Amino acid sequence: MDSHKVIDLRSDTVTKPSADMRKAIYESVVGDNCYNEDPSVTELEKLAAKLVGKERALFVSSGTMSNLVAVMTHCWERGSEILLGDQAHIHINELGGIATVASVHHRTLTNNSDGTFSIDELVAKIRNKGVYPNPTLICLENTHNICNGSPLPLEFIDEVCRIAKQHNLSVHMDGARIFNASLKTGVPVPRILRDCDSVSFCLSKGLGCPVGSLLCGSNEFIERAWICRYMLGGAMRQSGILASAGLYALNNNIDRLAIDHKHALMISSAIAKHDKSYIRVTVKNIHTNIVYITTDPNWMTGPQFVNRLNTITEEERTVLGDRCVVVKMGSRSATKIRFVTHLDITADDIELVIEKLNFIINNNNQ
Amino acid sequence: MDSHKVIDLRSDTVTKPSADMRKAIYESVVGDNCYNEDPSVTELEKLAAKLVGKERALFVSSGTMSNLVAVMTHCWERGSEILLGDQAHIHINELGGIATVASVHHRTLTNNSDGTFSIDELVAKIRNKGVYPNPTLICLENTHNICNGSPLPLEFIDEVCRIAKQHNLSVHMDGARIFNASLKTGVPVPRILRDCDSVSFCLSKGLGCPVGSLLCGSNEFIERAWICRYMLGGAMRQSGILASAGLYALNNNIDRLAIDHKHALMISSAIAKHDKSYIRVTVKNIHTNIVYITTDPNWMTGPQFVNRLNTITEEERTVLGDRCVVVKMGSRSATKIRFVTHLDITADDIELVIEKLNFIINNNNQ
Amino acid sequence: MDSHKVIDLRSDTVTKPSADMRKAIYESVVGDNCYNEDPSVTELEKLAAKLVGKERALFVSSGTMSNLVAVMTHCWERGSEILLGDQAHIHINELGGIATVASVHHRTLTNNSDGTFSIDELVAKIRNKGVYPNPTLICLENTHNICNGSPLPLEFIDEVCRIAKQHNLSVHMDGARIFNASLKTGVPVPRILRDCDSVSFCLSKGLGCPVGSLLCGSNEFIERAWICRYMLGGAMRQSGILASAGLYALNNNIDRLAIDHKHALMISSAIAKHDKSYIRVTVKNIHTNIVYITTDPNWMTGPQFVNRLNTITEEERTVLGDRCVVVKMGSRSATKIRFVTHLDITADDIELVIEKLNFIINNNNQ
Amino acid sequence: MDSHKVIDLRSDTVTKPSADMRKAIYESVVGDNCYNEDPSVTELEKLAAKLVGKERALFVSSGTMSNLVAVMTHCWERGSEILLGDQAHIHINELGGIATVASVHHRTLTNNSDGTFSIDELVAKIRNKGVYPNPTLICLENTHNICNGSPLPLEFIDEVCRIAKQHNLSVHMDGARIFNASLKTGVPVPRILRDCDSVSFCLSKGLGCPVGSLLCGSNEFIERAWICRYMLGGAMRQSGILASAGLYALNNNIDRLAIDHKHALMISSAIAKHDKSYIRVTVKNIHTNIVYITTDPNWMTGPQFVNRLNTITEEERTVLGDRCVVVKMGSRSATKIRFVTHLDITADDIELVIEKLNFIINNNNQ
Repeated sequence: MDSHKVIDLRSDTVTKPSADMRKAIYESVVGDNCYNEDPSVTELEKLAAKLVGKERALFVSSGTMSNLVAVMTHCWERGSEILLGDQAHIHINELGGIATVASVHHRTLTNNSDGTFSIDELVAKIRNKGVYPNPTLICLENTHNICNGSPLPLEFIDEVCRIAKQHNLSVHMDGARIFNASLKTGVPVPRILRDCDSVSFCLSKGLGCPVGSLLCGSNEFIERAWICRYMLGGAMRQSGILASAGLYALNNNIDRLAIDHKHALMISSAIAKHDKSYIRVTVKNIHTNIVYITTDPNWMTGPQFVNRLNTITEEERTVLGDRCVVVKMGSRSATKIRFVTHLDITADDIELVIEKLNFIINNNNQ
Repeated sequence: MDSHKVIDLRSDTVTKPSADMRKAIYESVVGDNCYNEDPSVTELEKLAAKLVGKERALFVSSGTMSNLVAVMTHCWERGSEILLGDQAHIHINELGGIATVASVHHRTLTNNSDGTFSIDELVAKIRNKGVYPNPTLICLENTHNICNGSPLPLEFIDEVCRIAKQHNLSVHMDGARIFNASLKTGVPVPRILRDCDSVSFCLSKGLGCPVGSLLCGSNEFIERAWICRYMLGGAMRQSGILASAGLYALNNNIDRLAIDHKHALMISSAIAKHDKSYIRVTVKNIHTNIVYITTDPNWMTGPQFVNRLNTITEEERTVLGDRCVVVKMGSRSATKIRFVTHLDITADDIELVIEKLNFIINNNNQ
Repeated sequence: MDSHKVIDLRSDTVTKPSADMRKAIYESVVGDNCYNEDPSVTELEKLAAKLVGKERALFVSSGTMSNLVAVMTHCWERGSEILLGDQAHIHINELGGIATVASVHHRTLTNNSDGTFSIDELVAKIRNKGVYPNPTLICLENTHNICNGSPLPLEFIDEVCRIAKQHNLSVHMDGARIFNASLKTGVPVPRILRDCDSVSFCLSKGLGCPVGSLLCGSNEFIERAWICRYMLGGAMRQSGILASAGLYALNNNIDRLAIDHKHALMISSAIAKHDKSYIRVTVKNIHTNIVYITTDPNWMTGPQFVNRLNTITEEERTVLGDRCVVVKMGSRSATKIRFVTHLDITADDIELVIEKLNFIINNNNQ
Repeated sequence: MDSHKVIDLRSDTVTKPSADMRKAIYESVVGDNCYNEDPSVTELEKLAAKLVGKERALFVSSGTMSNLVAVMTHCWERGSEILLGDQAHIHINELGGIATVASVHHRTLTNNSDGTFSIDELVAKIRNKGVYPNPTLICLENTHNICNGSPLPLEFIDEVCRIAKQHNLSVHMDGARIFNASLKTGVPVPRILRDCDSVSFCLSKGLGCPVGSLLCGSNEFIERAWICRYMLGGAMRQSGILASAGLYALNNNIDRLAIDHKHALMISSAIAKHDKSYIRVTVKNIHTNIVYITTDPNWMTGPQFVNRLNTITEEERTVLGDRCVVVKMGSRSATKIRFVTHLDITADDIELVIEKLNFIINNNNQ
């Protein structure tokens, strides 16, 4: 495998800072952010707030911290409860911090394949006023990672927010990839988030930064979030070193997410073209930069398929020659594989991936 | 105040990365640390573990997180209790995270002015086996921030660890400035920590890094610490960007801490020379890079003195001319001021500070 | 409504201690249970352990405390996760204590109408070893309150326990009404619980005691549970006053639960006989002493129906004469009503209830 | 030891309900308190509130729960901190529930031997507004158990409350033995508590009930406390069984606490009369019904002395004859023994205890 190119589609978190971004980091003007004296962090937080249409933003070290701080802040009072999708990143992938760290109870709503859930189920699960645990917060996710990288329909978000207001609940948007959602749907980010009380988005996913997320909301909300971040040990000193990368990304890397979407579409179209029962794109209308593939386990299980992509066979070498590549994707279950396109993937890489996929599909009939 | 030089002695956390450190950052080799694929982080963790004489290390975003993760990890079981000094940074300055985040109860021991406490008090406060909350961990701090930047005597540490082993407790060392302690006492860091189960030390204090701390302990300890860090949202992606600064610091900035100690001594000696009752060094044998000053509030309160240092008077301008500087120190109480020397302070800066102090003391007789 | 008999079918928690039970309370031999010196509590705990086939038992003040202590004890280590039905009493009715008090994360499994859930869903939701939050405990409920008072099929319990063992999880049975389950299925309680690690059952439901539940498990489990109970403030002094009622109940009131089942069947059969679309027993094969009724909201909503039962109309008075009664049931949703038979309900009461129901159904055609 | 009378002075928690109290229990009118339908509980709560001069009361199962619920309720917001004495029952004897259950941080104040602490220390330890953890609550204890059963001076309480108001903190009084304090000082309970926001007092200590405490405060406070009690599993069903004992105690057993004080004085005076250096009353002016004895460990350690009281020697049998008794006291440390007088101790018992003490002191010269 040594001399072959490795194309890493496991996640858009694997991107490495570009030369220009490194230059921005190198030149960053910094200060002690615990004293609120880091100009780059301040500038980044201002820009972030503006981009999402909220009053203020807080720079934190990860998406997990951003969501955790959001939950801690919204659920400031003892005995709070949150409602969130049963496929939410917060529920599945953030180590249960909402309960184990924040002592907040939750009820889940069954996620549809596009990341939405039934409004009726939501309404039915909001406990009456005065009944505890006290429903306080609804969490949405957009685009929805596990639900096929799907952007949430605007009407769904608006309706959830309407219900929330009606019941005096807040809405937090886990918008780790909110710019992908905006690009895909054509709805400006501030409009998507119009009725949401807070949003977190990630710099270290499609936007290509090494580290960081931003939690945005009202002035009052961020004031408390600042305390929660500190309590978790998330306050950093000259974090302008990271923030300058974030500034670079927000100024340069948002629009280019469209390329990632195009690349994802190219790969999924190539798979669809084969029209095989044993390997298909999980949800037909592919979405944004995340795509799930379903395999028939009698053909290849998820882990087997991922392993095959990691390997270069003799035959493959003979046929593809120096266009042989190692492709990394993520196995999500016995029959599910996820790939994610991103900043470090070129159009040529996509072609190489497609050639390899074609080779595997053609040469491994069920 | 505009055109005058500002000499910031509020804390050694205010240091900014040097050109060389920035170069190391610029060139850092990175990867996704959540997949354990960041070579710089791996290298930093290895070096850190070696320097402190422990099996393994974990890179975290702050000293507060490092200590919090340590407490969460040592107090892995429900109903644990920790014992720590009543002037400990963990107790006073870390937002109560041990209780509010980690749900761990604590008992405090009265700190002496050198950061130690009575061994008898310690023994008396360790509850018997089977009595809850279950004493699990003792936390020490070295050098001790609030207790005059004092390094802990080795015999004290050894004795605490002996008592701990005897009662089946662990010992965590908040060694934010452990290298200062080692330099001051001449005891190698691994010897200081010989019987401690874990230690955290900071890169972003005297060592001059923008961000980061390292938590070190046994392999098994760090394995659980890894989970706690993730739970808090402290896992970062291409954190090699920060770790490369850490590597630079560990390779270049440890020995030079002696300069900071010398600088701190110069300033405190200058104050002592005046032999005034209304302004004196709080504890005579000054320690490391942190010094506390006590003022008579009838002369100037802590805030008044700090404010005076922030100001340049007409008279001062006349006398000191272009050697006028603004000096920043931190007021800690009505009668206590703290200053801290660090990497960004030159010998010339120290002279300027002393000239200003002399001027103030001479021209403000009680 | 004044002079009319009130028949309270809201819950079996409304029972009042009988004269004989009061006598047992009056004569109870007591001591300070915090010193483990209350003979009645000791005797009750021994008898309880024996009846459910576990090593040891702990007397606690409520079913909610019993379940909470169980979760705290099983989830002794930081970062634990429990799996439980989405209709579980612990999830819906115990104020989220597992998260808000015990800091334990949970995942829910979709409950079927008989209180079971899909084994496939269970297996799919058990995270792999080493992934956090760490799956630690599965909670079952038997009979299942919200799921139509249904007893769990033995094969289901055995299969869940088999899966649990395979994945190194514990199983806790919320057996608030475990004796009802045993009577209904004919399976002895110890056999039902054979592979469960712990069980809690209530004295103050069908068994007719004023206060109390018992948590049962291994010696080691109860030793830790004792600590958790104390931590919650659940340790009581001369609790033999309550335990003597419990002893009386365990010795006298278990077999008679069959009468409650018969009574519940009589009422539900009477409703079924009408064969109306607008009022029916929710699940056909009625279960134990809890029955749910479904109404067509165009006929009467749940609250309207409950209100009607609370009322005696002029016409009803004319027709039923001195057999007019007020009946209390509980509205559970817009279309769901629950009634529960218990110790304080006589055969004659049941007839009166049926007469009233017949009257309402006959005189309120849709 | 078999046939000898045992006089139990370990604690006033060991009292057993009298025949009259048992009669009150037997006849108690009860209902389901979870539906707020238990007339005895309601009556008890009303009487309790009136006696302490607060708006409303809540019946809970123990003093530990009462204090825990108080802390949870006052510290309703995330990141709260409490200040309390380092000898407080809440700090030493309640299993750390404030942190392990309620996630509340605390700072301790050094208790004087009378249960007070320095007002200066208090003021110094109240963090400034906006600094976290957020100081929210001060806890006092009256009479102070570990601090020699001492009642707090009224001026101290008033001054603490004044400081609290000034800093916008609440004050909770752990008044487990508040009626003893009132009797001793002659200050009516409502006056003692005038400026306190909440108070808990115990029925199962000097007042002689089997189980129960009352938490009292404003209507709004008790409304939230009700939720916290439920969350902990502390809501009980027909708790009138216990409340009726409480009503009996409040109506009959308060004034007679003076007898316990007299009895305690008789024993401590008898010890003082010996004027020995190796055994003495710890604090000269004895207090209320709790007395601490200090021994010279070279004579007898605490455990040895307690053991001696538990034994009847040959010689003792010869001298004291059928006035030989076994006396139970509690060893608190190597040199400290605590005894507590209570409802079940008669004047004759006191004489027997004194005879035994005299015998031991006279026959065990150092």
